[in-house]
Amino acid sequence: MNPILRAISCQVRVRYAETDAMGVAYYANYLTWFEVGRCDLLRQLGSSYRDIEHEDQIYLPVIEAHCRYKSPAHYDDVIEIKTTVTHPSRARIRFDYELARLEDRTVVATGSTLHVATTRDGKICKLPKRLTELFA
Amino acid sequence: MNPILRAISCQVRVRYAETDAMGVAYYANYLTWFEVGRCDLLRQLGSSYRDIEHEDQIYLPVIEAHCRYKSPAHYDDVIEIKTTVTHPSRARIRFDYELARLEDRTVVATGSTLHVATTRDGKICKLPKRLTELFA
Amino acid sequence: MNPILRAISCQVRVRYAETDAMGVAYYANYLTWFEVGRCDLLRQLGSSYRDIEHEDQIYLPVIEAHCRYKSPAHYDDVIEIKTTVTHPSRARIRFDYELARLEDRTVVATGSTLHVATTRDGKICKLPKRLTELFA
Amino acid sequence: MNPILRAISCQVRVRYAETDAMGVAYYANYLTWFEVGRCDLLRQLGSSYRDIEHEDQIYLPVIEAHCRYKSPAHYDDVIEIKTTVTHPSRARIRFDYELARLEDRTVVATGSTLHVATTRDGKICKLPKRLTELFA
Repeated sequence: MNPILRAISCQVRVRYAETDAMGVAYYANYLTWFEVGRCDLLRQLGSSYRDIEHEDQIYLPVIEAHCRYKSPAHYDDVIEIKTTVTHPSRARIRFDYELARLEDRTVVATGSTLHVATTRDGKICKLPKRLTELFA
Repeated sequence: MNPILRAISCQVRVRYAETDAMGVAYYANYLTWFEVGRCDLLRQLGSSYRDIEHEDQIYLPVIEAHCRYKSPAHYDDVIEIKTTVTHPSRARIRFDYELARLEDRTVVATGSTLHVATTRDGKICKLPKRLTELFA
Repeated sequence: MNPILRAISCQVRVRYAETDAMGVAYYANYLTWFEVGRCDLLRQLGSSYRDIEHEDQIYLPVIEAHCRYKSPAHYDDVIEIKTTVTHPSRARIRFDYELARLEDRTVVATGSTLHVATTRDGKICKLPKRLTELFA
Repeated sequence: MNPILRAISCQVRVRYAETDAMGVAYYANYLTWFEVGRCDLLRQLGSSYRDIEHEDQIYLPVIEAHCRYKSPAHYDDVIEIKTTVTHPSRARIRFDYELARLEDRTVVATGSTLHVATTRDGKICKLPKRLTELFA
């Protein structure tokens, strides 16, 4: 049940759509970038959230999300998302994120999401093999 | 196949999330407000898009959308959405929108969306009775 | 520095735009609903975030956000947002949220946001009188 | 005033956040992808919308947008955005878009946006040299 220590990195460029009247990225969009980070991590580890849903018929809804905003992200900034993953129990998976502006390495935010495995009709179930194998 | 001439009105208040770094509402969000307008129209006419999906198992994906932006909408503005609906063919339905700032009646945008009725697996079908009855 | 114990309530109806392929509201949108809750609270208490920005030239960026998802929200659900506010220090303000489906009173989520007062150029400053007076 | 005929291409991967309860990308998000397309075009041509705003102090708000939806885009699809640009008058610029699923080259949508150059306070002005030079 150890975390996958090697952080997986990917990048997003801040869209104008993601900014707000304060001239910075709106705070809810960081949770969307978290999604980009965790899906990219699964893809880089040879898995895919699409396959988990389509082939395993398992969903991973978020049951808890947390974000600490440290420095604003602006339009057109390239943000590097470092994601790590932990497997705290048979039905749960947790991702931790660090977001930094690529240009000057300033950390803009850190956060985490906790997910539970469910069937299509919402019943809690075991994580699919596809995921637990990553921690073997 | 005449339009429902009586315009149905509802209101949205511009959220901070919907603004951008220009200090005004981001242009894609107007299409979300169009959705609020057409769903409210159906509800006020005694129907409901939820029922169309859940009970009739029919979907109304957008096949064309158009918007003309006339004056910017700002954070906290209350926008009145006037929606009318037309039934151009057996499988299609069209909504027209006029969005105005409530405070000073300035028109901020006009637009339209064209929808086609489909089954869950994407096959084009007739509009549900629930909808065509509105035009009788 | 006591919390405003009286919870202020407002409602949002879940938009189709806010749902995702899992058939439920996407998790980042809860943070947008939090925004609706806190802005409505300020308005109901006789203040306004718009005035804080425009007249006091003070911003209240989020420095921390947390959300616990308890039950999914679906398209067209009316969600009641109960918001309370605390004033933990001279420069900070915190909001707590409880979101419940209006129809059956199921709590769908709870959460909080912590904000710091800043000037337009991002320097931390005291909360505007307009806000601290609410706690007097 | 000729169009830049060479189409500039970039890619987006459909985010879960961008899908809706129909299981496909929500229609308003295509306008956000248009934004990604036109900003990338400017960047590839050696210009940048960020510089237009920051250095030229000129804004390019959208005054008209149109989209024709031809085939649904699904979660995790990679969408190729081909953008061309035309310069119809001294104050206006127009972008045309074709979006195709990378995997099978299916066109998912075509569309356009028309923009007008304005100063920070909303007065219509000439397009910045940075842009008109691209058409020389």
